[in-house]
Amino acid sequence: MYVILVYDVGEKRVGKMLKLCRKYLSWIQNSVFEGELSELQVKDLKAKADRIMKENDSLILFSSRHERWLEKEIVGCEKASTDNFI
Amino acid sequence: MYVILVYDVGEKRVGKMLKLCRKYLSWIQNSVFEGELSELQVKDLKAKADRIMKENDSLILFSSRHERWLEKEIVGCEKASTDNFI
Repeated sequence: MYVILVYDVGEKRVGKMLKLCRKYLSWIQNSVFEGELSELQVKDLKAKADRIMKENDSLILFSSRHERWLEKEIVGCEKASTDNFI
Repeated sequence: MYVILVYDVGEKRVGKMLKLCRKYLSWIQNSVFEGELSELQVKDLKAKADRIMKENDSLILFSSRHERWLEKEIVGCEKASTDNFI
């Protein structure tokens, strides 16, 4: 399935979350990622994120069965054109 | 159509973008919004955002023809449960 992931976590955990999400998905902006994942991968990712996250941290996963069901449009600067964010 | 909007703009423009996006959509997390918009509303929103945005600012719009084509799952804290973010 095609997944869009956005997180909002405490500053101390941003690095860990970023590293985790980049293992599964492509970074597209700020704390936003996208990519094609199997159900098992989604389950793994959620379980691992849950172990990193603490009180008040939040993660939202939007998923669509087919990538073609989702259109993406960018206004302004395409931050992840080369995916070279560190 | 059902829209997910994420923005990443310079600190000085965050307030304006937040205000603009909340006119059209519901805030769900950090700089993430969602909601049902007509094509005309999407066009308006993009034009207005474009007037606020400056170099390096970025806005991504995901849209799906039907809300049911998108599943949403929240891990951790649901930040916008009462949509009382100011």
